Amino acid sequence: MALLVALSELPQEKWAARLEVEAPGLEVRRWPHAGRREDIEFALVWKPPAGLLSSLPALKAIFSLGAGVDHILEDPHLPDVPIVRFVDPDLTQRMVEYVALHVLFHHRQMFAYIEQQARGEWNDLRQAAAGRVGVGVMGLGELGGAAARQLAALGFKVAGWSASRHTMDGIECFAGPEGLDAFLARSEILVCLLPLTAQTRGMLDHRLFEKLSPDGPLGGPVLINAGRGGLHVEADIVAALEAGLLKGASLDVFEDEPLPRSSPLWRHPRVLVTPHCASVTAPYAVCTSVAEQIARFEAGAPLANVIDRERGY
Amino acid sequence: MALLVALSELPQEKWAARLEVEAPGLEVRRWPHAGRREDIEFALVWKPPAGLLSSLPALKAIFSLGAGVDHILEDPHLPDVPIVRFVDPDLTQRMVEYVALHVLFHHRQMFAYIEQQARGEWNDLRQAAAGRVGVGVMGLGELGGAAARQLAALGFKVAGWSASRHTMDGIECFAGPEGLDAFLARSEILVCLLPLTAQTRGMLDHRLFEKLSPDGPLGGPVLINAGRGGLHVEADIVAALEAGLLKGASLDVFEDEPLPRSSPLWRHPRVLVTPHCASVTAPYAVCTSVAEQIARFEAGAPLANVIDRERGY
Repeated sequence: MALLVALSELPQEKWAARLEVEAPGLEVRRWPHAGRREDIEFALVWKPPAGLLSSLPALKAIFSLGAGVDHILEDPHLPDVPIVRFVDPDLTQRMVEYVALHVLFHHRQMFAYIEQQARGEWNDLRQAAAGRVGVGVMGLGELGGAAARQLAALGFKVAGWSASRHTMDGIECFAGPEGLDAFLARSEILVCLLPLTAQTRGMLDHRLFEKLSPDGPLGGPVLINAGRGGLHVEADIVAALEAGLLKGASLDVFEDEPLPRSSPLWRHPRVLVTPHCASVTAPYAVCTSVAEQIARFEAGAPLANVIDRERGY
Repeated sequence: MALLVALSELPQEKWAARLEVEAPGLEVRRWPHAGRREDIEFALVWKPPAGLLSSLPALKAIFSLGAGVDHILEDPHLPDVPIVRFVDPDLTQRMVEYVALHVLFHHRQMFAYIEQQARGEWNDLRQAAAGRVGVGVMGLGELGGAAARQLAALGFKVAGWSASRHTMDGIECFAGPEGLDAFLARSEILVCLLPLTAQTRGMLDHRLFEKLSPDGPLGGPVLINAGRGGLHVEADIVAALEAGLLKGASLDVFEDEPLPRSSPLWRHPRVLVTPHCASVTAPYAVCTSVAEQIARFEAGAPLANVIDRERGY
């Protein structure tokens, strides 16, 4: 029984070696050294080359290294086997940290305070209570739901939006295209943790920014995107910042990664750029999870966290 | 029945006018226009001039504008009447925000990421899980207790230290001088919310920094002081940063406020300076509280949140 590790843009050997420790009964092969393809029953992938997975005739399941699976679904020749996303309390916790940090950073006007510090200026800015600040979380799955709950615990006026209807205690939930405008109108800080699908691609654009609450206590809307770069239009973000349609942004994901040196986002004084590090999969966690899932699957149990291919997540 | 408002270094008129709205039966006088001193039964103060309060023969109670009362107890001629500290959910919530923001800022290596951004550098830093990071909260009263609980909810390994023994679910509590070294040894991020008393003055000094956990996952201890500037020794903080004994700091309070322009803290690349804004008393909240307390007191009920003068808080 063999598993193929095929991780683009990542230190593949780190994961492969760890997986050999976690799953001693498994023969772990490293792409492009696939060996006899008929032996390969499982694959652990990140941005796999198009056509690779359909070239494995004995494949039983595909494991995604991350929470998102858009990097797999891009392949037009995907074989019809279950695709398993990675769900892990550690991954969720790290995303919650990232979201809490960046919401608080903008809420507490840290750009202004850091600028004041650089000038040696002692000046107490008027600070809104969190309960008056509307924070909107797009995406209410594993990560978005946990982030929304943490923001509510910090006292923010939290709402959520997702494609399908959710209900959450203390969080106003909006759903579908018909719920979007009302959700945006009450959100001054917009946190995006949506999956990247045909429906959500490019959704964070000029038209959407225009619908955000313009006169909230922070003095202008803020965008936080820790989902996928394909969800936003970077030219529109830059233009919205210049026009004052956005007051600031924290971006962890980009249309092209690494973010090209020429991007004005690097240098914008009201943008925090982080290198897709909001929630990084720890090798030990993903390898333990994959090894456990394969052992249970081989014993006859169903796989957990299988995505819905039609829905895209 | 008259109340004297005496607020140094603050826009006194804002509070006085608000108090007139909240307590219509009260004659509100503004220092230095005290009028006939025999009429004054209450005082709302911030850093009152020494001797002022003992010059009011009919004084029944002193209200502090903030959570701390060190600015009142400094007066050697204090009359023997109850001193009431300000306790308010909004004040607590703002302090919790400040502490959560700054702990997450250091935990998530934001100084390094901001520096990388300035260089246009895309580089994912190794990130410890919150559960491996020891955060120590000094002071477990109204503010420190709430901050410790929020940090535990964010997944940090939280401990607390206070002069007297506390017990809190999920938080390891240390107490007194005999518990201090063990508390410091397991703390990589130290959050100080202690009251300023004769026992705590200058406590955050070189000797204390040397006892902090030097080899935690963050790569060095971090100090967050949002209590009082008198708790720390600024020369020792600067020296500890230079020597690598401290990796970074967030400071909201200072020995002299405003922080003098000559202080190297303004310019240190691993220090965040904020102008004593962690938790600012909102006029509406303190005035409502004072008006309610006086009404209940006049109706025969005891005052709430009276400090213990021997203890100093």
